[in-house]
Amino acid sequence: MTKFSQELSDTIRSIPDYPKPGIIFRDITTLLGNPRAFRRAVDELVQPYAGMKIDKIAGMEARGFILGGAVAHQLSAGFVPIRKKGKLPHDTVSIAYSLEYGLDEMEMHVDAVQPGEKVILVDDLIATGGTAVGAVQLLRQIGADVVSACFVIDLPDLGGRKKLEALDVDVRTLVEFSGH
Amino acid sequence: MTKFSQELSDTIRSIPDYPKPGIIFRDITTLLGNPRAFRRAVDELVQPYAGMKIDKIAGMEARGFILGGAVAHQLSAGFVPIRKKGKLPHDTVSIAYSLEYGLDEMEMHVDAVQPGEKVILVDDLIATGGTAVGAVQLLRQIGADVVSACFVIDLPDLGGRKKLEALDVDVRTLVEFSGH
Repeated sequence: MTKFSQELSDTIRSIPDYPKPGIIFRDITTLLGNPRAFRRAVDELVQPYAGMKIDKIAGMEARGFILGGAVAHQLSAGFVPIRKKGKLPHDTVSIAYSLEYGLDEMEMHVDAVQPGEKVILVDDLIATGGTAVGAVQLLRQIGADVVSACFVIDLPDLGGRKKLEALDVDVRTLVEFSGH
Repeated sequence: MTKFSQELSDTIRSIPDYPKPGIIFRDITTLLGNPRAFRRAVDELVQPYAGMKIDKIAGMEARGFILGGAVAHQLSAGFVPIRKKGKLPHDTVSIAYSLEYGLDEMEMHVDAVQPGEKVILVDDLIATGGTAVGAVQLLRQIGADVVSACFVIDLPDLGGRKKLEALDVDVRTLVEFSGH
């Protein structure tokens, strides 16, 4: 880890046995609430894309909205919310995705991205990759060119990053935690 | 309305009879997805606070996270999520607030704001003000100095702005729509 990664990592709160015994939950709210850490995290997420023409940032409900909004503003891109089923008021496309137990469904507006537009996916954390893989597939359904996906936290032991890379998505992360 | 307000207003999609007959839903996703409109909306939200020392931006789940994240980054402030009950992993404070039918509950982490810290509340829209008033009360419960609340859209006929002003909160909005 770089000095920056270590500093950022230190601002993330670890909550043992949440949401169930044996799991350590990585709570990003302490990073978000720390002005310096939040600012640097956004700046580091944006940095690899500086100078690229990015049309849209897609963020996943709900924590992905916080980072995604800031990243979109910094890159002068539009923001596209990917939401849980039933939350968007206009015509949508949807996709089922895997959760730990069973399936859920995510949606976006059918006109949120035009075919060929360059899109970056933003979320706080990549774990098993179920949500991120679903989001990439949903974006590609409507013709988006998903050029990259970025996350503050990677839990590499859960394999999500590799699943995204197998879909030919460039993946960027800022800090890693081993285990769950 | 200024020329800027009119331009911004034109990027907001109006959906008649949603979520029920007689209501015109103001859909901000078309503004968010428009790079120029999103950038200008964030810049205009931030402008009145330029040069002020703001500690935290509080954003309400879920659309308030998108604008709130960008505003926090621009002001070099931390971001505090106010969430629906049961979504936050650490110790919380909560408050009941009025919806159109009945009550719901919102929560924030008990250590998300330190007493005396200057906080601005950010959301996409103010209507009856039920959520915003609840958020101000919740923030004050833990000692926050709520210096202002800002919204892209005001529906003045629903009276939310006046309720906030009656609580001595400075309110800023960018565009207005009459009716519901």
